[in-house]
Amino acid sequence: MLLSQATKPAVSDLESSMLTIIQTFHQYSGQKSNLKKADLKELINNEMNNFIVENDTLDKLFADLDQNGDLEIDFKEFIALIAMVTSACNELFVPKQQKN
Amino acid sequence: MLLSQATKPAVSDLESSMLTIIQTFHQYSGQKSNLKKADLKELINNEMNNFIVENDTLDKLFADLDQNGDLEIDFKEFIALIAMVTSACNELFVPKQQKN
Repeated sequence: MLLSQATKPAVSDLESSMLTIIQTFHQYSGQKSNLKKADLKELINNEMNNFIVENDTLDKLFADLDQNGDLEIDFKEFIALIAMVTSACNELFVPKQQKN
Repeated sequence: MLLSQATKPAVSDLESSMLTIIQTFHQYSGQKSNLKKADLKELINNEMNNFIVENDTLDKLFADLDQNGDLEIDFKEFIALIAMVTSACNELFVPKQQKN
């Protein structure tokens, strides 16, 4: 357990969620701490299949995320994906009622 | 429960984490779907107190996050905070062993 120092008894649901994001990334990246395209595909298929379905766009998604073009997704690039997908979910699920 | 459509039985831990981030934002923003500075302070104190401690920097943090300067934090600005804090956590908790 890499993250055991952070799981204090009083960790909130939000903090626990942030730790889950970190743990999921490292579960698929392994020791190298980068996701290759095959790792990202496996992660999306196993862990995000309710939120990302069109797997044939993986090439485009990977290229978009891989900002530095090294053919690997580092944690900062991964968290950008999480932010993008979470924002999209927020817009889908939350009624637009703040028009004031 | 705003997000009940998304909580299918097979929702993964990662997806559940993303929903928790959305739910936490709306728990503090209420119907207006924006966080005022007092809302953000309450959210940080209650939900991120293991990860963000120096509360006296709230003014600076708020100004940094409020990209469009409307004195409110919308969801996209909030998810940028989550991404920033999660990245910082990742760097703190994960040993630097990928030097290859």
